[in-house]
Amino acid sequence: MTPTLPTTLMANAIRALAMDAVQLANSGHPGMPMGMAEIAVALWAGHYKHNPADPKWINRDRFLLSNGHGSMLHYALLHLSGYALSIDDLKAFRQMHSKTPGHPEVDVTPGVETTTGPLGQGIANAVGMALSEYLLAAQFNRPGFDVVDHHTYAFLGDGCLMEGISHEVCALAGTLGLNKLIALYDDNGISIDGKVEGWFTDDTPARFEAYGWNVIRAVDGHDVGAVDAAITAAKASAKPTLICCKSVIGKGAPNLEGGDKVHGAALGDKEIACAREHLAWPHAPFEIPAEVYAAWDAKKQGAAREADWNFTFTAYRAQFPELAAELERRMHGELPAAFDATLAEALAACVDKKENIATRKASQNAIQALAPVLPEFLGGSADLTGSNLTNWKECVALRSGQPGNHINYGVREFGMSAIMNGIALHGGFIPFGATFLTFSDYSRNALRMAALMKLRSIFVFTHDSIGLGEDGPTHQSVEHVSSLRLIPNLDNWRPCDTAESMVAWGCAVKRADGPSTLIFSRQNLPFMERTPAQLADIARGGYVLQDAPDAKAILIATGSEVELAVKAAAALAQEGVAVRVVSMPSTDVFDRQDAAYKAGVLTRGMPRVAIEAGVSDFWYKYVGLEGAVVGIDTFGESAPAPVLFKHFGFTVENVVAKVKSVLAA
Amino acid sequence: MTPTLPTTLMANAIRALAMDAVQLANSGHPGMPMGMAEIAVALWAGHYKHNPADPKWINRDRFLLSNGHGSMLHYALLHLSGYALSIDDLKAFRQMHSKTPGHPEVDVTPGVETTTGPLGQGIANAVGMALSEYLLAAQFNRPGFDVVDHHTYAFLGDGCLMEGISHEVCALAGTLGLNKLIALYDDNGISIDGKVEGWFTDDTPARFEAYGWNVIRAVDGHDVGAVDAAITAAKASAKPTLICCKSVIGKGAPNLEGGDKVHGAALGDKEIACAREHLAWPHAPFEIPAEVYAAWDAKKQGAAREADWNFTFTAYRAQFPELAAELERRMHGELPAAFDATLAEALAACVDKKENIATRKASQNAIQALAPVLPEFLGGSADLTGSNLTNWKECVALRSGQPGNHINYGVREFGMSAIMNGIALHGGFIPFGATFLTFSDYSRNALRMAALMKLRSIFVFTHDSIGLGEDGPTHQSVEHVSSLRLIPNLDNWRPCDTAESMVAWGCAVKRADGPSTLIFSRQNLPFMERTPAQLADIARGGYVLQDAPDAKAILIATGSEVELAVKAAAALAQEGVAVRVVSMPSTDVFDRQDAAYKAGVLTRGMPRVAIEAGVSDFWYKYVGLEGAVVGIDTFGESAPAPVLFKHFGFTVENVVAKVKSVLAA
Repeated sequence: MTPTLPTTLMANAIRALAMDAVQLANSGHPGMPMGMAEIAVALWAGHYKHNPADPKWINRDRFLLSNGHGSMLHYALLHLSGYALSIDDLKAFRQMHSKTPGHPEVDVTPGVETTTGPLGQGIANAVGMALSEYLLAAQFNRPGFDVVDHHTYAFLGDGCLMEGISHEVCALAGTLGLNKLIALYDDNGISIDGKVEGWFTDDTPARFEAYGWNVIRAVDGHDVGAVDAAITAAKASAKPTLICCKSVIGKGAPNLEGGDKVHGAALGDKEIACAREHLAWPHAPFEIPAEVYAAWDAKKQGAAREADWNFTFTAYRAQFPELAAELERRMHGELPAAFDATLAEALAACVDKKENIATRKASQNAIQALAPVLPEFLGGSADLTGSNLTNWKECVALRSGQPGNHINYGVREFGMSAIMNGIALHGGFIPFGATFLTFSDYSRNALRMAALMKLRSIFVFTHDSIGLGEDGPTHQSVEHVSSLRLIPNLDNWRPCDTAESMVAWGCAVKRADGPSTLIFSRQNLPFMERTPAQLADIARGGYVLQDAPDAKAILIATGSEVELAVKAAAALAQEGVAVRVVSMPSTDVFDRQDAAYKAGVLTRGMPRVAIEAGVSDFWYKYVGLEGAVVGIDTFGESAPAPVLFKHFGFTVENVVAKVKSVLAA
Repeated sequence: MTPTLPTTLMANAIRALAMDAVQLANSGHPGMPMGMAEIAVALWAGHYKHNPADPKWINRDRFLLSNGHGSMLHYALLHLSGYALSIDDLKAFRQMHSKTPGHPEVDVTPGVETTTGPLGQGIANAVGMALSEYLLAAQFNRPGFDVVDHHTYAFLGDGCLMEGISHEVCALAGTLGLNKLIALYDDNGISIDGKVEGWFTDDTPARFEAYGWNVIRAVDGHDVGAVDAAITAAKASAKPTLICCKSVIGKGAPNLEGGDKVHGAALGDKEIACAREHLAWPHAPFEIPAEVYAAWDAKKQGAAREADWNFTFTAYRAQFPELAAELERRMHGELPAAFDATLAEALAACVDKKENIATRKASQNAIQALAPVLPEFLGGSADLTGSNLTNWKECVALRSGQPGNHINYGVREFGMSAIMNGIALHGGFIPFGATFLTFSDYSRNALRMAALMKLRSIFVFTHDSIGLGEDGPTHQSVEHVSSLRLIPNLDNWRPCDTAESMVAWGCAVKRADGPSTLIFSRQNLPFMERTPAQLADIARGGYVLQDAPDAKAILIATGSEVELAVKAAAALAQEGVAVRVVSMPSTDVFDRQDAAYKAGVLTRGMPRVAIEAGVSDFWYKYVGLEGAVVGIDTFGESAPAPVLFKHFGFTVENVVAKVKSVLAA
């Protein structure tokens, strides 16, 4: 399609809005929007399939700004093309509770598909979206009915390409042949420290060809026609495509363009005046001529496109009513009607079987039980499938040209996690992926982004402590459980047996407004007997597992240490000291309970001892200055697990001594 | 050099030791040692310059196992070639406090240069070592005296190459042209999930050529002569070299070789018996024929090589006594005699100037003050030099072919941090590198590894809170300061002004047995008046900044919130409520003080309120169940910093109210 107005004017409208909004806020990044203006014109006016009136239309193309600091580019595009983003919204750029925050944030701005800023993760999200589209299309399309059929476009810059995660996810996208993924690289030769030639000399096209991508080299990023042609060629490729666009950062600012000063600061009134003259853009700040608005307006075309799709979908629904309903259910993130009953049944089976197994195995049993009613399950592991046990009997391994529902992500923890976020953002799937708990470090910022974006990503972490044994301190978590608890809006579960593992899975699946981590043991753990009321309280994050009318102290434990707490309580009872045992699989969930419930579990004035095979700092929140913690405040050691638990004081004797010391204080 | 014994026997000795040690431990990874046995023979018998009797000889080649799970390969090599690692040590593989832990650990096993296991970081350490060698050679070598002249060899596997960090560090190594770095890739086509072709199809040679490496393709990894020739060619290259060795994982185990089952589990007695027959290795477990020991013995040659070097170094010392002394000082990690006085002077200057500046600027002033006496300073930033302020007036930017002491690491936070660890391990430098605090997430496992290895790596993190302002929640730390405090052996500093910033730098530089983080504000912070005793107590991590004889409560604050604590104390004083203000720049260091000192600062029974612009959980350790925390338990927002501090309750009124509520409780 050809825009009706000279594309220069359309591009300069972006430039003007970007420099004026950054200037008004006196904060922001004008360089990228000004440098990518023509690239944006080529994509948005020529190819991008969207409907400004319905930013959630399920068959829209996805557009992501992996170089998220250039947020004003996206806001300008959304405003100009007719989204519910007014000129006043643009004037409120980077102000409190505006629709135009410093970096793009999903659910804050209509049309923004993901939250970006932490470099490299946007392109990872894009890989997840392209993968979702591929898998949904395979599941739902029928001859003559391509109800799932869209592209995923990502802008990215030098920063994204330097980040390691770009390697992980682009390599996987190449292997999987995700040909509807089209990335446009803003090759401007500048990063914050200056000209990149001193620290970034990759032959990026050759690198991407090594990944199996289609690469379109040396496109003039200021030639709308050239970019348009490249996108057309990309859409015809059987591979994912990288379009390398040579551009000038801050183009249009005559004295600053092409340098690093234009990257991340307001241009200043003087340079903006020069730019206005240089661009022949005489309009006042935030004034856009009507004909420019008209040229950009995508509302009519967008409505027509969605109407076309609705026409097709209506016919599809007539012919495949169940498929249509299922696609809508999944895209809306609703669980199937049978879910609650299946979960309850599976939990009852755990109670019946009383299995003493590793919680990672209990997790696999949970997956196995839930998968039949959750076709949206999309599991995976970062090359530890047999250890993490995230596969199930009927799962099909995803391969190039072979859709599946279990992904061998390769040794790519960060990439896996950010791809999962892209899958959760796209809709249609509940992604889960796994590695050893210690390597949550590698993916940590993707967990944070999932929490910030309120995504239903489920991060499975096995081998959760010194219980991992001989692999030693590099592989043994000590700080990780507590440190994950510090991330806002992340629900962390460390279950003690098969029942808690099942409930944790259920809570994670049901949680529609945020991610969960499911943290499991390598080693076998005994099943705990519970009353129905106790069983129901697992979902409250913490509950009284054992009590005594004359309990004088509270033992709080999680995961593999609940067994020790129960044994220590028995030993203390023999000595005439009655204690309560609280199992606390999720402090995050427990903290959200009402005050009365919490006070019933952790009764005020009762001395407390917490037991967890990890750092102790966090637990003072529950035991206070007068309580005690049985924890590990050093790194682990390489030895068999039983030797380690004894060495680090996870013994009945030590817990008993701690309780006595607390009672004596 | 040509080994005197058939190399097959030498390789099979490795195979036998690896399979027998793993079998005895019933834990470990036999596949890699058996697959890389010939590659190891080619390198260690033909090229590796080392002296088993002196594993710390400063001009030794460095050898790193980036695929650290194959630790038995390294242990076998160390044992066979004559290091102080006995056959009994090998029999204690993976047992408590043995010299042969599950993954290689520096300072545990003589000859192990770094701790590996977390994939990709070993090759990053190797880049740091090769860089150190290049820079030290440039500083210390003189015509005829190549006193610093060694290679860095790294083994790595598919896992390392899938990890994103391999992209970051290998790209930088290529850009910098570190030609004495030689990596040997164990291209066996297998990772834990099976044949890698389903998830890892990179054209790795092309990828490394895109980084500017010399790549030697398709070497038969079981042909010692071919590998030997490739290493010889690599040594002649002007670029870093990747030698791609095709190998069979677990080679020698006739029924399991070439598959994933041989990767990470004992072979079993039956398969080991088959292997013994297949390899014609009739010797009992842990029995090595004398002639094999003789062929492997590197003691004599190693002693001769070091003697040669000593001869050269003696002559060098005669001609350049100051350079020789300086090289030895730096390689021993000793600070210069002038350091303490310089630090004291710089601190006195801070006290005199009373500057109200951002602590990131105070940090730059500290660097500027210390750099003249610390030629070992090797600074850098992950593409945020002008924001992190880790450069100083006289620093020289490192470029390809141009030695320097400030590194533009590019947007490679994880790579930077792991390279810094390699630099610290090599000796001769004190590395520091910076990014925004939030992006410590990207590098988190490298911080952990620095702490585990007890390295003097100094991690500078600026823009430490919502004080960063408009960039919004993706860039605003809330959980990070606390979560770094959970990593064992990592000292974290969050100073409140110029004086605390200077002391923090001093402590980080002086700390020889572990890493430090230095966490700084974007925004200006006021200088705090102190008595000389208070000034001295900064180094104790926490101290009473203001007190009153009748103080009824304690305000504890860090960094930018100390100012708020002081203001709140003044407001409370006006209302007749006297409080103590404790500045706590490092909880880690404070926790190590004696009980009497700590009790003097945090007096038992005095109610407490902690103030920190971050998550509150951690602070209950100091305020207890009856205290209060003014913190942020959600993500931040995009807005100007003053708006944010007010929005999140960092106001005098709120702190005053919290103190009153605590006093009323």
